[in-house]
Amino acid sequence: MNAAGNPSNKKSNPDASAKGEREFIRRLAAELGPGTGPVGFGNDLAALEPVAGGLLWSTDMLMDGVDFESGKHAWRDIGRKAMAVNLSDCAAGATVPVAALCAVALNDQLSMDDALELFRGVRDCGAEYDCPITGGDTNSWAQPTVICITVAARPDADRPSVTRGGARPGDRIYLTGRVGGSLLGRHMQPTPRILIALDINRQLNPRAMIDISDGLAIDLWHICESSGCGATIDEKSLDNVVHPDAERLARKTGKPPREHALYDGEDFELIVVVAGDAPADACRRLGLLPLGEITVEHKLMLRQGDGRRSPLEIRGWEHFRA
Amino acid sequence: MNAAGNPSNKKSNPDASAKGEREFIRRLAAELGPGTGPVGFGNDLAALEPVAGGLLWSTDMLMDGVDFESGKHAWRDIGRKAMAVNLSDCAAGATVPVAALCAVALNDQLSMDDALELFRGVRDCGAEYDCPITGGDTNSWAQPTVICITVAARPDADRPSVTRGGARPGDRIYLTGRVGGSLLGRHMQPTPRILIALDINRQLNPRAMIDISDGLAIDLWHICESSGCGATIDEKSLDNVVHPDAERLARKTGKPPREHALYDGEDFELIVVVAGDAPADACRRLGLLPLGEITVEHKLMLRQGDGRRSPLEIRGWEHFRA
Repeated sequence: MNAAGNPSNKKSNPDASAKGEREFIRRLAAELGPGTGPVGFGNDLAALEPVAGGLLWSTDMLMDGVDFESGKHAWRDIGRKAMAVNLSDCAAGATVPVAALCAVALNDQLSMDDALELFRGVRDCGAEYDCPITGGDTNSWAQPTVICITVAARPDADRPSVTRGGARPGDRIYLTGRVGGSLLGRHMQPTPRILIALDINRQLNPRAMIDISDGLAIDLWHICESSGCGATIDEKSLDNVVHPDAERLARKTGKPPREHALYDGEDFELIVVVAGDAPADACRRLGLLPLGEITVEHKLMLRQGDGRRSPLEIRGWEHFRA
Repeated sequence: MNAAGNPSNKKSNPDASAKGEREFIRRLAAELGPGTGPVGFGNDLAALEPVAGGLLWSTDMLMDGVDFESGKHAWRDIGRKAMAVNLSDCAAGATVPVAALCAVALNDQLSMDDALELFRGVRDCGAEYDCPITGGDTNSWAQPTVICITVAARPDADRPSVTRGGARPGDRIYLTGRVGGSLLGRHMQPTPRILIALDINRQLNPRAMIDISDGLAIDLWHICESSGCGATIDEKSLDNVVHPDAERLARKTGKPPREHALYDGEDFELIVVVAGDAPADACRRLGLLPLGEITVEHKLMLRQGDGRRSPLEIRGWEHFRA
């Protein structure tokens, strides 16, 4: 790990009572162990093994007070989440994670032990998907902690990776699980849907996929925007994908559970778009939940039981913005 | 760009008066233009073209108030620096940059125009080395701005990349330029030494290289640690690599200019270690400045004109830590 930075005011030591960044990196490299290649920690560059067909990569930044609360959540869980949301991007593309880099700006009051716990969480979550941390950048500062992970992934065997942009009118929309109310706790324990994504890609030849980070409505809209189409959600199907947490949260907020399903984020389930003639039995076997269909009209609509359609608001996190 | 995050308090919009993150990303994608591949902005994953022999990658995080001062520096220059320090890591490995990802946590008072200026700086610096931004992650928050760039690079033609770990006793140490006093302004305008690094790799078969981010002494020591050896700097050679800025700064600080050359950081010149029998005329033609030699003894030493040797303090940014 290098520590480029202005030396006049940089505090790269996450624990002023300890022996500084070099000691931290030494302990880190020891902890992260065999996953770290010959070039990796302690070098400017880490190796990425050649992959026929090329790699894909993605980066996600998490901030204390925004994506996690260090006063409330354990550092190991915070580390796990930071890796999981990155792996969720790999899942959205139906790709297989290969390796990760982890850069941090640690609050300078953080102890070295807590900093190591953070990295252990990152490592543990990555290890579950054979995705070692092969390098990174350690910094500290007087502000809240920031974690930025970059993941490289490869396509699965002979299957192409999946983007947001391939949906066509008449395609069917599914979810890998129920959504809403993640704030009750699930938002800190996301499971990247990598395994199911690979199965979906092998069996259903999906047209488009995305993971639900900002909310069902807005992330479905991202598919519509990338694909140049619209989408209609069936009311009955929508009620069927409402997570029990959305119902529990609804009792607190007084909003309809459906609102939480549509507009809460951080579920990290996948929206899966397949051709209209994709085998319905395979969809069932994979546990996919039907939601609606892709339309020509560039709008997001809700279709009631009687067939009448009304426009759905397109918002997610934007609802909460300043 | 995805915006994974807790939707309940996330402010992903860098300018609340504008149309939010989607509008920002649209403008960004338009600005960054042809460099952005088919999957890139507006997708979870960006493509990395296959490269025979594999890729290398590196990540660097810069924080407002630490690596730059947003109240003092132009956002375009800040963006340039963020990319340059990453490209400097590519130079240290004598590699050719291929593509970059840029994740940001923007202070929520930043205007969209300033945010675009930041990305323009990143883009401009990358473009000089054929390194497009192919994706990233945009966030905003109430804290100071953080920029995290990840760069992928490839080895140069048939030349292997260079690490910190190959120095051997008897090897000679060179610098690509004079060092010290970068705080007078050069620290905000680093030039990644990619072109000279490739020439060095082709002509001199270097044993080890590193870029000087933390300071000459500590970065040379990083080579010693990775290579399991020590180094001796010749006093006369040291005086010869003192940058004029180190002399100017010394007049302000009252320290010897040599101190600034040894312990200031952010020069982003390269330390180059070559075999003892490497052609001296080629070193001269490349403009390399001799500094000393690699030793068996695991220490950093200064050799005076009369041959007497005294230990050099190993410190860089650590000097300044809390």
